[in-house]
Amino acid sequence: MKYTQSGAAGPLRTALLVSATLLALLGAGAAQAQSLRDVRSADSLLVLKARGSFYVGGEQVEKTAVELGSLGPDDQITINQMYVEYMVPAGATKVPVVMVHGATLSGKTYDTTPDGRMGWYEYFVRKSHPVYVVDQVGRARSGFDQSAFNNVRAGKMPPDQQPNLLRLADRFGAWTNFRIGPELGKAFPQAQFPVEAAAEMSKQSVPDLLGTSRVPNPTWKALSDLALQLDGAVLLTHSQSGPYPLRSALIDAKGIRGIVMVEPGTCNGKVHTDDEIARLAKTPIFILFGDHLSSPTKLPGPSWQDRFNDCKAFKARVDAAKGDVRLMTTVDAGVRGNSHMMMMDRNNLQIADLILAWIDEKAGR
Amino acid sequence: MKYTQSGAAGPLRTALLVSATLLALLGAGAAQAQSLRDVRSADSLLVLKARGSFYVGGEQVEKTAVELGSLGPDDQITINQMYVEYMVPAGATKVPVVMVHGATLSGKTYDTTPDGRMGWYEYFVRKSHPVYVVDQVGRARSGFDQSAFNNVRAGKMPPDQQPNLLRLADRFGAWTNFRIGPELGKAFPQAQFPVEAAAEMSKQSVPDLLGTSRVPNPTWKALSDLALQLDGAVLLTHSQSGPYPLRSALIDAKGIRGIVMVEPGTCNGKVHTDDEIARLAKTPIFILFGDHLSSPTKLPGPSWQDRFNDCKAFKARVDAAKGDVRLMTTVDAGVRGNSHMMMMDRNNLQIADLILAWIDEKAGR
Repeated sequence: MKYTQSGAAGPLRTALLVSATLLALLGAGAAQAQSLRDVRSADSLLVLKARGSFYVGGEQVEKTAVELGSLGPDDQITINQMYVEYMVPAGATKVPVVMVHGATLSGKTYDTTPDGRMGWYEYFVRKSHPVYVVDQVGRARSGFDQSAFNNVRAGKMPPDQQPNLLRLADRFGAWTNFRIGPELGKAFPQAQFPVEAAAEMSKQSVPDLLGTSRVPNPTWKALSDLALQLDGAVLLTHSQSGPYPLRSALIDAKGIRGIVMVEPGTCNGKVHTDDEIARLAKTPIFILFGDHLSSPTKLPGPSWQDRFNDCKAFKARVDAAKGDVRLMTTVDAGVRGNSHMMMMDRNNLQIADLILAWIDEKAGR
Repeated sequence: MKYTQSGAAGPLRTALLVSATLLALLGAGAAQAQSLRDVRSADSLLVLKARGSFYVGGEQVEKTAVELGSLGPDDQITINQMYVEYMVPAGATKVPVVMVHGATLSGKTYDTTPDGRMGWYEYFVRKSHPVYVVDQVGRARSGFDQSAFNNVRAGKMPPDQQPNLLRLADRFGAWTNFRIGPELGKAFPQAQFPVEAAAEMSKQSVPDLLGTSRVPNPTWKALSDLALQLDGAVLLTHSQSGPYPLRSALIDAKGIRGIVMVEPGTCNGKVHTDDEIARLAKTPIFILFGDHLSSPTKLPGPSWQDRFNDCKAFKARVDAAKGDVRLMTTVDAGVRGNSHMMMMDRNNLQIADLILAWIDEKAGR
């Protein structure tokens, strides 16, 4: 398989770092001051027909003065809206792609990588796809409903009813759970994650405010609404958001031309009813996992191999309903060492090409 | 003064809406489903040399399992980093401009307006400035430190020590405080704010997590650091962030070529020492206010006229130290009806031209 780096400048650094260096990178103190000077520009200009941002959904609700932070009177706010930023390339375009990030992250996931290379957002645009990157409802620029926190602060609600704020942290939440290496400070020999930039990935982490949203998760409908507004789109999701497009398709599949699930946290292999599976069988689905799936996450819950197996069960059910599910790992494509964060891995554009080829084949116009 | 709408498509809508319509727009229920179909594309292509995102600053800190949301073990995270997204236009460029949003908002402030027109982010790029839009530390994609909330939830900290989460709401926080009109549901006769899109602006609101950051505000140093990394930049701030560049310049003014304060919440007219004023006198400063400054905000605290007067006192002190402060209102420029959110007003590009002319004059290369 050819390594494609079109559009991304700079040499492909594959140096195997020794554990001592890795441990130094993980050391507490001032975070690595990489930032701007490590960001590499593309070799060619990016020509856009359009770009910008907007919101999908949202509900107007009344709040008390306390819930608003005790500055003014009772008043109205909007909650459960989803932020969307987008770029549309000049010239003939292919099917739009909507990109959704995982737990304790934001849409930044798909932009410039932690070591300053081009992310999937820009790369897919350069490959003629209009791309729409979202912040999940209740995260980052989508905002969240602060009412419970202010009510607890004011003694109007018991503290244990306040939403929990999950944050995936550096040594376990990221290093072992994202499968950079088998144990803290040790990278897999063929690790594709840019280990020297682990401290930069840490800066992308935000508290997960999913608990502040209503049930069902408003992002599910926002995604099917967005696909409709786009008059057809591929939904590309990752990790926590992996199974969202299945929910979106069950709400309204009309706009959903294809579903790409990158290392989904679950495929709901045993959750969906036979009727739901029959409906999901009408949309082509691509499920992609990385390498070293059985490496211990060092967090409670299923391993990535368990999650892969769940997706295998899902595929078997959808296949039986005459659906079209491709389930594979990057190892199947002949590449070793891809992590959970393959959109940031050194070979991220090679992985993108795998996905782009599937989109062309299954969801192209 | 000529109205400049180069680059922005669509007719300039100046219809004066009647109160009945405005009240309907403010009514509780499903938020206006404007979104994508109301976003207008520019007439001409946008050609970029580079674009992307990165972080400035950040501190690695140890957290307990409880503080991380009780999934895994104690671990390390990064806090106090500042998210930056940027676009660099093709061709010869002018001085970079860094744009900072106000309270309970994010960098979205400077992108597509609530009624779907081009924002200052893209417009300044089209006027040959590399533009860097930030999310303040502790807001949106910069993330925040969730520890206090999780400690309170677990009974490890008294609820009243939990940070307050301010949210500016629709009827008072926005309508009267942002001076869309003199009272709820009534717009000023010459109102420049796109009143029909008030519900869309509401979606941009996020809880203000400034209380979760350390003192001094990490955004101050992040801005002077960014200006240094850019080898010279103009800092353009709004409302809450209005006075930040003064703090940044006192930390390190070397990279700060000019300061633009759009309706600053304060100019610290009486706060700075004479020595500080003498140092601030070395950087050109432009302070711009809108119309109807004495209209009641209907919130506690100073009126916008009070804030203007504070800036007048600031200007007098800096002028006495042989500084260069231009303080004016949009009315001085012959335009009526500009609100606090002038980057979203119907004549937002006309206002941008005022600022661009000042930058060319005072901070151009």
